[in-house]
Amino acid sequence: MSLNQAIEYAEEHKDSFLEQLFELLKIPSISTLPEHGEDIISAARWLRDRLEKMGFDKAEILPTERHPVVYAESMRAGDEAPTVLFYGHYDVQPTDPIGEWDSDPFDPVIRGDDVFARGASDMKGQVVAFLNAIESILTTAELPINLKFMLEGEEEIGSPNLQAFVKKHKEKLACDFCLNGDSSILAPDQPSITIALRGLSYFEIRLQGQRSDLHSGMFGGVVDNPANAICELIAGLRDDLGRVTIPGFYDEVRELSKQERELLPTLDDDWWKEHAGAALLFGDPAYSVTERARARPTLDVNGIISGFTGEGSKTVLPARAMAKVSMRLVPEQKPDKIRAAFESYLEDNVPATMTWELIEHSSSPPSVISHESAEVQAAADALEAVWGEQPLFDRIGGTVPIVGIIQDILGAESLMLGFGLPSDNIHGPNEKQHLPNYYRGIETFIRFIYAVGK
Amino acid sequence: MSLNQAIEYAEEHKDSFLEQLFELLKIPSISTLPEHGEDIISAARWLRDRLEKMGFDKAEILPTERHPVVYAESMRAGDEAPTVLFYGHYDVQPTDPIGEWDSDPFDPVIRGDDVFARGASDMKGQVVAFLNAIESILTTAELPINLKFMLEGEEEIGSPNLQAFVKKHKEKLACDFCLNGDSSILAPDQPSITIALRGLSYFEIRLQGQRSDLHSGMFGGVVDNPANAICELIAGLRDDLGRVTIPGFYDEVRELSKQERELLPTLDDDWWKEHAGAALLFGDPAYSVTERARARPTLDVNGIISGFTGEGSKTVLPARAMAKVSMRLVPEQKPDKIRAAFESYLEDNVPATMTWELIEHSSSPPSVISHESAEVQAAADALEAVWGEQPLFDRIGGTVPIVGIIQDILGAESLMLGFGLPSDNIHGPNEKQHLPNYYRGIETFIRFIYAVGK
Repeated sequence: MSLNQAIEYAEEHKDSFLEQLFELLKIPSISTLPEHGEDIISAARWLRDRLEKMGFDKAEILPTERHPVVYAESMRAGDEAPTVLFYGHYDVQPTDPIGEWDSDPFDPVIRGDDVFARGASDMKGQVVAFLNAIESILTTAELPINLKFMLEGEEEIGSPNLQAFVKKHKEKLACDFCLNGDSSILAPDQPSITIALRGLSYFEIRLQGQRSDLHSGMFGGVVDNPANAICELIAGLRDDLGRVTIPGFYDEVRELSKQERELLPTLDDDWWKEHAGAALLFGDPAYSVTERARARPTLDVNGIISGFTGEGSKTVLPARAMAKVSMRLVPEQKPDKIRAAFESYLEDNVPATMTWELIEHSSSPPSVISHESAEVQAAADALEAVWGEQPLFDRIGGTVPIVGIIQDILGAESLMLGFGLPSDNIHGPNEKQHLPNYYRGIETFIRFIYAVGK
Repeated sequence: MSLNQAIEYAEEHKDSFLEQLFELLKIPSISTLPEHGEDIISAARWLRDRLEKMGFDKAEILPTERHPVVYAESMRAGDEAPTVLFYGHYDVQPTDPIGEWDSDPFDPVIRGDDVFARGASDMKGQVVAFLNAIESILTTAELPINLKFMLEGEEEIGSPNLQAFVKKHKEKLACDFCLNGDSSILAPDQPSITIALRGLSYFEIRLQGQRSDLHSGMFGGVVDNPANAICELIAGLRDDLGRVTIPGFYDEVRELSKQERELLPTLDDDWWKEHAGAALLFGDPAYSVTERARARPTLDVNGIISGFTGEGSKTVLPARAMAKVSMRLVPEQKPDKIRAAFESYLEDNVPATMTWELIEHSSSPPSVISHESAEVQAAADALEAVWGEQPLFDRIGGTVPIVGIIQDILGAESLMLGFGLPSDNIHGPNEKQHLPNYYRGIETFIRFIYAVGK
């Protein structure tokens, strides 16, 4: 039987699979930093070459306004078989604060049961695990599904060009459903499937006061200070329980139903403290910690800078200040309305002594996925077969803009299936991928493909 | 007559005086940045060599815990003549934001009537002008006063080691009064003498939340954010008129008397707007703009940083945040009490989800100088002779810690006499020294020395 042969092949090729993963992890494909432009291309080429070698047709690198998309397809399973679009991204987050990494983020090392490297979990690990699963099937049989790949290089900067790309290549990307590997499970021994995602509105505020930096002794008390002013603006954005105080922010939030609330995993305070590395938790006690993290909107400052930030002291009255502020959105919040509310807040509250500018870095709606579809059931069966545990249906607090885009343009639902863990430190120092999850993930993908391809 | 010969010499040697100034300006003696340690030593050596060449005794570089002091003396005027201690500093501020300079800050250039370079006004220009005055006298006569030099390298970092230095060398530095050149006049055609200075308490606040940076989608709403928290703390430090809201902050502020208020120069809003490069002014309307800048306490954020501050976006929930916050103090505020009040504020207001640390970078009391002394009158006469205008008695908003130290340890008052301008952009980009002031300053110093030496 082909399924068992593929699983056996995967079992026997763990070392060469890991070598493939390490090759891709070594390429520092940081999408937000212009100086890594060539690394982005190297990572795209590595994937294109790999897909070509595995026998995919039309393996190609398709341009966008900035970082390209890797495409490939295999349509040999025929019209009866479903067509699956595998979505992944090959770009990664920056590595700062670099001093807090215990090893080079782009020289993967194994310590204990984990591979440490930027992108190990988010999401080169998931992309290569899926490639390994396909390789395992193809060495003994044909694919039981039609399969298309769309691997983008801009996920970590909010996928600014993907909507236009999907529109342009709508025919080429047509599919029955999307398999999105940018996901995780709850714990090494607790498989889960993500059925909802939060949206993201990510802004940069720039304040400009007087023409240039001044001496604070000479002009303090007479000239306003953009560093103080940006702090005052930010202080007005949420209360001491983290509830957002921008007028109208909660107007379109739909509360969870009783059933939706019951589907949330039961994670206690200790679980959250341990995974966050925090001594105390935070937030509105009207909602459980898990509901706050997965299904409630939030606002966070992601970065702020003004004036002199070096060692020692400088008595400067800064001329400008900048802050990056993002909000996680839940159904039925709309990014456009949130932006308008935020702009109104700034119009009403920026002092007359300053000029301001608002830059939008991301604008992604929240999304919910039907958990009664055949695909979700096939994934649940595959997870249970590998883990020996029934998967939980989970919501994640993060944002995958592509899910909304694929729903809108291709009319296809996305199944989130990936094998990261909440403790993988994605976006932070010492990102890692748990190796037992990696290998179980390969087997899960193999089983899933045979299940939907029947 | 020696006075006229010295003035004539100064008139004839403008070019060589400027060459001397340029030599010192080319040395990037930034005291706050460790990488400029050798430049600090080069600047100290340049001054020591210059003083030696001019015939001063004991020209030497005396160590402190960090940057050394240049000392020299000439005691040949005898016991009848007064002993004057000239105070200056040879260190300068950092140059950031470097992109806003129109020319290299350490390659001085003349444009129009101004020399542009870091330190041109604050205060290498004042130190070299004084040296030029002494050179002019010494070429035709003996000095009519006993003169000591104390030139420090730590003024721009708050003179952390000067108090210990003055204590250690109390005998050597004994004097009748101190002539402090770290000063300015109100306008090119309006001479003035500074009779009061504000004090300075300069702090750095560090907040630490969870162990390391987290993904804001995964943990937003559950883990507190030090970037939001530091903004909230800062927002609580002053109201929208800039009045400091730390409990007890104003307790010891002595209001100006009617006479003191009348001595303040009359500078209108337009003067302040023009010199600040600000479209609108700011502050408590209960006090005139000039009183706010010169004789009222203030609080300003001098720098703030947290999270991701590069180009683009990163959805990080930062683990820590830092802000530099300084307060200008007026009589009778005490830096120790201000620190205690600030610490109480932090104890009461830092959220339980964070740990915090407070670092003190500067702690200088405010000071007032008697304006009826013979020295102040001699300076007033010299200024009037050169400018043809009676000088105003002014207060400055900045801080010169050494004035308090010399009063405390040596029991000597300080006369502030220097020739910078409020529009010199000290501490900011494109710092400059107005050349007509520079040359008039040399003549004023010559006249002043003969007046007090009689």
